[in-house]
Amino acid sequence: MPQISKKGAELPASAIRKLVPYADAAKAKGIKIYHLNIGQPDIETPKGALETLSKTPVNVLEYSHSAGIMSYRKKLAGYYAKNNINVSPEEIIITCGGSEALQFAFTVCLNPGEEILIPEPYYTNYNTFANICNAVIKTIPSSIKDGFALPPIEEFEKAITPKTRAIMICNPNNPTGYLYSKEELQKVAEIVKKHDLFLFADEVYREFCYDGHEHFSVMQLEGIEQNTILLDSVSKRYSACGARIGCLITKNKEVFGAAMRMAQARLSPPTFGQIFSEAAIDTPQEYFDAVIKEYVTRRNVLVEGINKIPGCFCPNPKGAFYAIVELPIDDSDRFCQWLLEEFNYNGETVMFAPATGFYADPEKGRHQVRATYCLNTNALRSAIKCLEEALKVYPGRTK
Amino acid sequence: MPQISKKGAELPASAIRKLVPYADAAKAKGIKIYHLNIGQPDIETPKGALETLSKTPVNVLEYSHSAGIMSYRKKLAGYYAKNNINVSPEEIIITCGGSEALQFAFTVCLNPGEEILIPEPYYTNYNTFANICNAVIKTIPSSIKDGFALPPIEEFEKAITPKTRAIMICNPNNPTGYLYSKEELQKVAEIVKKHDLFLFADEVYREFCYDGHEHFSVMQLEGIEQNTILLDSVSKRYSACGARIGCLITKNKEVFGAAMRMAQARLSPPTFGQIFSEAAIDTPQEYFDAVIKEYVTRRNVLVEGINKIPGCFCPNPKGAFYAIVELPIDDSDRFCQWLLEEFNYNGETVMFAPATGFYADPEKGRHQVRATYCLNTNALRSAIKCLEEALKVYPGRTK
Repeated sequence: MPQISKKGAELPASAIRKLVPYADAAKAKGIKIYHLNIGQPDIETPKGALETLSKTPVNVLEYSHSAGIMSYRKKLAGYYAKNNINVSPEEIIITCGGSEALQFAFTVCLNPGEEILIPEPYYTNYNTFANICNAVIKTIPSSIKDGFALPPIEEFEKAITPKTRAIMICNPNNPTGYLYSKEELQKVAEIVKKHDLFLFADEVYREFCYDGHEHFSVMQLEGIEQNTILLDSVSKRYSACGARIGCLITKNKEVFGAAMRMAQARLSPPTFGQIFSEAAIDTPQEYFDAVIKEYVTRRNVLVEGINKIPGCFCPNPKGAFYAIVELPIDDSDRFCQWLLEEFNYNGETVMFAPATGFYADPEKGRHQVRATYCLNTNALRSAIKCLEEALKVYPGRTK
Repeated sequence: MPQISKKGAELPASAIRKLVPYADAAKAKGIKIYHLNIGQPDIETPKGALETLSKTPVNVLEYSHSAGIMSYRKKLAGYYAKNNINVSPEEIIITCGGSEALQFAFTVCLNPGEEILIPEPYYTNYNTFANICNAVIKTIPSSIKDGFALPPIEEFEKAITPKTRAIMICNPNNPTGYLYSKEELQKVAEIVKKHDLFLFADEVYREFCYDGHEHFSVMQLEGIEQNTILLDSVSKRYSACGARIGCLITKNKEVFGAAMRMAQARLSPPTFGQIFSEAAIDTPQEYFDAVIKEYVTRRNVLVEGINKIPGCFCPNPKGAFYAIVELPIDDSDRFCQWLLEEFNYNGETVMFAPATGFYADPEKGRHQVRATYCLNTNALRSAIKCLEEALKVYPGRTK
């Protein structure tokens, strides 16, 4: 039997995936699981866009342009203009989800062995895309104490070596929910400019900013227009994760040209998803107002509920729908597995993502989990109750 | 301005892409172009499957399972069973087009510097996916004289080095239209087994076999079940290139596991396309009968028409909708550009893909073009007339 490649063997399986068999076993026993482990919103997808798709006549379901349907790219440029992002349709490549945009950006910008600096904790799947192009993720620690604000810029400066090629920012952040401010991003821009680095920005949670805070995009940063690559997706914006429509945006023509050659090799992004996404741009503001209001309510239920449990701490995130929670436990992998395997409260339990998977060094996430607030408030309250009861009896409780 | 990666700079732009600006300029001058350059069928997509998609209620457009929707995988296993391919739903990963399946297979099987043997000419985009994982494509020449039959197996044997890791077969073949027989594939299986190689098979044109010939799949080859990886797509089968739904199939659990980790990193394949593709499995046989009949008619018009032009030779392909045509010209890149830039016959011209792009050494394709027969017979006749008139006046004519 032929052996798979070294890269194939080394591709990481996330901590959260390892829990799936335990979740399946719990379900088989009839236990109800509150899924605070995944970022799959339960918010309804805009009906208008779905209806437009179902009414759009299709005779031959053709390849679209490799960079995406032009009418969609034009309309998308209008969406960005409304968000104070100045971009032309010729600077946009529509991708199969934000994931493909990430893969294009990493592959065309990073040589094997080159380093990319990312504030930690960070989105696990960046590992796989870095792995595919043999790039190295170097992390700059942020702290739960200040809600995972941008680490001091001196920490980035210290970490820069001749091999450093890029900085990656996810804003609002997955997994912390932290919303980087204009001032923080300007500090990043300075160091990007000083060392002539690429700046990758994952802004797929742009719409999800709370408490009156506004999103500031890396595309608004001046003086680093040739360094900046925006990675975006409609998945969260329109609760349309299954559309698999994202995009890569850059004003750097060399990056764009190389990403286009990758785009051409895979022929085209999904046509149905593009028709849907083009229509979704017309989603009325009331939809978003209602969604944001709902997420703020959910966040408040989650954060206040968790902070009431002795020994637990959860910062109050200003964006996305994630929070990192510190728990009085010995080992988050063990605790999350125990919740599924050995615990239930009145036939119910809760599933979290162990934070070990969001740190380069799993030890740093040993006492933390990531909680999402994609469930309705009743479910969230029940989930928090499960957590509270679980911590009373968990054998690995630390304080 | 930061420099892009070496890989990004080296990503190949295909010969056919280089012609696009000339085609655009010709269109701007009002010249009608017959596109014999692309494999985009004009055949209607099955209406039943499109209707099912538009009637499927969606409230939340969620991520599907990373390996694809289970009901689709189950039904797909049934489709394969009807095609004498024995596969379980757990051996199928649904991908974003055949392209993603190719990328998964290459990445998880090929180490940097390892070699993959491919009969030449071959599908250009394999280059990009090999390039991404730093694998090396080594070609085994096939010849237009016997219609691009499998090269003598001794030629494969001679090309094998300690770095050889895989053989790639596209059947029916793009760009030649050649349909490999059971006997030819059994010879491939022997060498695959002897040297313990992977066998990648691109069978996206499975349905398109003519003149009573039946398709024989690599999945039917005995004794190499752990070596075989099938790459498939619904793009051509249902004239649904824009669905972006393909799959990777393997009974090798290590390959499957590594490909799944790649699949998990990109979260899920497109949901709309999966709903469509699941419904498309119910497309009645009459649809395919009519499509095959139409393609045979078109092929006959193309092949007979071209072979009547002095100095031209076109073998009679038994599958897909491509043919490699030998022309009495100095340089196929120059000729194809000249057709768009300087020639027209009553305001019309024809576009081919220069065959230089289908050979590792472009010189081998210098006197050949790839013609597709995706247009109706009237358009094909007009295109052939353009070619005939063009060859009368082309300054680089050789005989």
